[in-house]
Amino acid sequence: MPHLPPSVLDRVLPIRSWARVYSRQDLSRDGLAAVIVTVMLIPQSLAYAMLAGMPPEAGIYASILPIIAYALFGSSRVLAVGPVAVVSLMTAAALGEVAEAGTATYASAALTLAALSGAMLLAMGLMRMGFVANFLSHPVIAGFITASGILIAMGQLGPLLGIGVKGASLPELLDGIGGKITGLSWRTTLIGGLSLAFLTWVRRHMKATLRGAGAGPVLADALAKSGPVLAVVASTLAVWALEWQDAGVAVVGHVPAALPPFTLPGFSLALIRELALPALLISVVGFVESVSVAQTLAARKRQRIQPDQELIGLGAANLAAGFSGGFPVTGGFARSVVNADAGAVTPAAGIFTALGLAFAGLVLTPLLHFLPKATLAATIIIAVLGLVDLSILRRAFGYSRADFTAVAGTILVTLLFGVEAGISAGVLLSIGLHLWRSSRPHVAEVGLVAGTEHFRNILRHRVITDPAVVTLRIDESLYFANTRYLEELILQRSANAPGLRHVILMCSAVNEIDMTALDALEALNHHLRDRGISLNLSEVKGPVMDRLQRTSFLDQLTGSVFLSQHEAFRVLTTRAGEGLDARPGPRQSGGARGACDGPEFRSGRGLWPLGNGR
Amino acid sequence: MPHLPPSVLDRVLPIRSWARVYSRQDLSRDGLAAVIVTVMLIPQSLAYAMLAGMPPEAGIYASILPIIAYALFGSSRVLAVGPVAVVSLMTAAALGEVAEAGTATYASAALTLAALSGAMLLAMGLMRMGFVANFLSHPVIAGFITASGILIAMGQLGPLLGIGVKGASLPELLDGIGGKITGLSWRTTLIGGLSLAFLTWVRRHMKATLRGAGAGPVLADALAKSGPVLAVVASTLAVWALEWQDAGVAVVGHVPAALPPFTLPGFSLALIRELALPALLISVVGFVESVSVAQTLAARKRQRIQPDQELIGLGAANLAAGFSGGFPVTGGFARSVVNADAGAVTPAAGIFTALGLAFAGLVLTPLLHFLPKATLAATIIIAVLGLVDLSILRRAFGYSRADFTAVAGTILVTLLFGVEAGISAGVLLSIGLHLWRSSRPHVAEVGLVAGTEHFRNILRHRVITDPAVVTLRIDESLYFANTRYLEELILQRSANAPGLRHVILMCSAVNEIDMTALDALEALNHHLRDRGISLNLSEVKGPVMDRLQRTSFLDQLTGSVFLSQHEAFRVLTTRAGEGLDARPGPRQSGGARGACDGPEFRSGRGLWPLGNGR
Repeated sequence: MPHLPPSVLDRVLPIRSWARVYSRQDLSRDGLAAVIVTVMLIPQSLAYAMLAGMPPEAGIYASILPIIAYALFGSSRVLAVGPVAVVSLMTAAALGEVAEAGTATYASAALTLAALSGAMLLAMGLMRMGFVANFLSHPVIAGFITASGILIAMGQLGPLLGIGVKGASLPELLDGIGGKITGLSWRTTLIGGLSLAFLTWVRRHMKATLRGAGAGPVLADALAKSGPVLAVVASTLAVWALEWQDAGVAVVGHVPAALPPFTLPGFSLALIRELALPALLISVVGFVESVSVAQTLAARKRQRIQPDQELIGLGAANLAAGFSGGFPVTGGFARSVVNADAGAVTPAAGIFTALGLAFAGLVLTPLLHFLPKATLAATIIIAVLGLVDLSILRRAFGYSRADFTAVAGTILVTLLFGVEAGISAGVLLSIGLHLWRSSRPHVAEVGLVAGTEHFRNILRHRVITDPAVVTLRIDESLYFANTRYLEELILQRSANAPGLRHVILMCSAVNEIDMTALDALEALNHHLRDRGISLNLSEVKGPVMDRLQRTSFLDQLTGSVFLSQHEAFRVLTTRAGEGLDARPGPRQSGGARGACDGPEFRSGRGLWPLGNGR
Repeated sequence: MPHLPPSVLDRVLPIRSWARVYSRQDLSRDGLAAVIVTVMLIPQSLAYAMLAGMPPEAGIYASILPIIAYALFGSSRVLAVGPVAVVSLMTAAALGEVAEAGTATYASAALTLAALSGAMLLAMGLMRMGFVANFLSHPVIAGFITASGILIAMGQLGPLLGIGVKGASLPELLDGIGGKITGLSWRTTLIGGLSLAFLTWVRRHMKATLRGAGAGPVLADALAKSGPVLAVVASTLAVWALEWQDAGVAVVGHVPAALPPFTLPGFSLALIRELALPALLISVVGFVESVSVAQTLAARKRQRIQPDQELIGLGAANLAAGFSGGFPVTGGFARSVVNADAGAVTPAAGIFTALGLAFAGLVLTPLLHFLPKATLAATIIIAVLGLVDLSILRRAFGYSRADFTAVAGTILVTLLFGVEAGISAGVLLSIGLHLWRSSRPHVAEVGLVAGTEHFRNILRHRVITDPAVVTLRIDESLYFANTRYLEELILQRSANAPGLRHVILMCSAVNEIDMTALDALEALNHHLRDRGISLNLSEVKGPVMDRLQRTSFLDQLTGSVFLSQHEAFRVLTTRAGEGLDARPGPRQSGGARGACDGPEFRSGRGLWPLGNGR
């Protein structure tokens, strides 16, 4: 291994930062947390495997090696990686297109999907593309998770009631349920209904009841969180005692007692091509969800996570899942919160959890034989109903129509067409609405506030203006998406304005002028010149001015570039009577090439010839 | 027809604006222009039909009804609509995926493509979506057209030399040419080579030679523009006289003498699904090209065009093409410039051109029998080499790396993978690079310029600062793509800064704060409060403040919102010793809810309670 400076090695292998200072106290804390999380994860892994259309043991396998891989490369101390609800739903949607659930082809395709996702995440991490997560706005993420929660809950009504329901979207699910409601197995419905009722009571009242009975807060909390385990144990015993597995109640059945196998994902080009887009969507959604959880938990302890390193950690985890009989995984909210609340301090807690689950996979699996799927369905429904939060719509509606459109659109498309279409719609809507909004920027005509050097919107303030000079403050960068709109607007304002001699574009809010906008400014310059009006700029930012000076635009400019709007106004209102010279005017007060006195110059650091550094 | 006010009717049917005032002078001008354009268009229509893989008469049909449809609905006075080089290339690429060139299926699919494109354009026009054209930046358009020109020229080497060459991308074309170079027909190559040489001479030297021989400028110009027609006539006569059509020279062959037929495009769902994306790309590219041409020509005469109306005009034209045996069309540069230069004043010139071509289609087609395809190929090559302009790369490199990446990427992808991939890459690159750039905005720490009220970048100017107060001016709107970056930056700046008590975000360049950014500001507020630092805002724009006031953010804000940065600095540097109060501070100088004196207020129009209108 090449000799790298310790700091680089620390960044690449975050495990070094905590493993070297591991203490006995850390060990006991992590160990205790691991016990609690393992107990919680046994039913959850089985449930999410079922949600993903995978055999139950795949859920356990997917919770073992991936979390160890994350512990080596991830940057969060308490994130727990494994199967999660939304990603499992997306997995089922993706695999359902290429294979029949329950077949060997399906399970094999799941390995390919996980490995693909892992490779993509790793590649993005190495290319430091953590910023792609930024292209999902909060409202869109919230809307997507809400709609996914609804889809998951509806889909689980099938196993809950003992009817077969398949569908990747709300219309398909409703069709499926409606058609089969007559085929109910009353025993399954009974088990499912009782589990649901019990879990609901646990979530809402158990903690209070236990506290009332005198239990301490920590114990009450721990017992309340173990509701699903209690339901699993109780229903398994009931089915075993009553022998209902032969009376129509679907059970988990035989779960091989084994450690995660070493598996090779299929590398057929056709399969990769079919799964490429779903893998990308799963990677992005998984990453965004995981990073949100990790950041929330890190903030509690004043820790910070590194998004690019998180990509590498999650990539390694998914590759591990692909090579050990699992399916796509990511950092999960419920399991991570439980991990953190249970006292975990380092990722070693995750490693111990993995060992605990491996042990359970070897030893406890015979006990799962009689576990009814209806109970697992009930645990999923209760878990995801916590994800559904329609209040985001009301918040967005009150604040920003663009955000509201994005979140409402995302929810609708996800419900109507499934998760892949939904998240794609969310990204496109977020970006599209942002572009649309910035393609119609706010432009204020401004005037001078008497007695000051400030300029304010003529529509909102009492200001001084001059009929020969129009100042337009453009509240947006000038780039290809808004160029045409601005050209139109400026030309319209300067048409039918007799006596108008000078147009000033106040660029205090212009952070960029790209090539398309530059071409448009040149065209505008010519247009206005034909009408006998000069074009001037004021308050151009340093980086923007640097670029303009590398072009011929400033030479062609009929007017001047002013450092401050006040200077521009002062100079041009005194020159108003002169009209437009055919030659470009001298650069005023810009220091670009001129010697002028004025308060703006006494404090420069001598960088004036390079432009307005403001 | 419902009774609409005349102005609405004028907008919907632009024909009304010029038809009602049509004079005899207009008639003679338009008529003359039509004669010139018709003569030019006969070979060009055949050539572009060949380029699109269509039978030659389709080119003539596509130049008749579409231009009449445009004349009714389009907003340009001089735009000539018909087959153009780039769109014909895209047509061939799209149809090549669904049928074999030269078959009836191919021609039928072309009708569907044109009708689809027409319907999309019409829909976009009715929804006033003209702004979608803005999402192609100038450099990307220039790069795409340049690369398309290269592809077209390479592809035409086949017919020019008499070898069969097929390919939608440069690698395919080079493969095809390399493989067949031994199968050359020397006669074809001779004709092709002579045509090419003649046309090159015409383009470069003919006008000068004619002027030298004493011809007037207008006559010289007209003769120079009719170079292709001369080449066509000469080579047709040569082939006919020498009977070379039986000696290996491919000729146009039998062209039915007929008016455009009434055809029904196929409506099979499978075909529509396959052609939907290509139709969309053709619509957008055609629209962008057409609008550029129309705007350039309109600017010469101080006219303006309406992009949304142009969508409707082009939509009608393409629908007409689909129902009259044509293929996708748009406003063409060469034909429109010739039209305008020949003196056209209204779209009636286009109608007369259509009539002229219909006449030619009925009467002159037998004369085309012996027209060698090599000559048509030569006319195309000469025409498109005028489109190739690699200087855009140099310009972009010098001005903006983002623009350079977008144009270079577009050119490369177009050459390597074909036009559809190329234009898609161009759009994605333009938008993606813009988002990437605005996700890493320029943030300047600013200080007070002594003796003034201005604040400038501490790195570029000598300014006054205070260790207890940090002011960050964010040169970008706050939205989902840059939220994370800014959060990191602000937290980093305020970490390890002993003595820091107040952070001011100077929002003079912040045009929007979306929900994601709002959440981040709230989180930032909390983070800083935990560190004993207050968060303040200054110079918040009116529309932004209006929105913030509808949320609870301002109540939670530990600091205050100041109208001017100077006020913020003044107040906070005097309070620096006090430290952070747990309760939100009073809103200073904002007039939001406070009575403060100061020069900023004497001139307000009384709208202060609604926020800082600046």
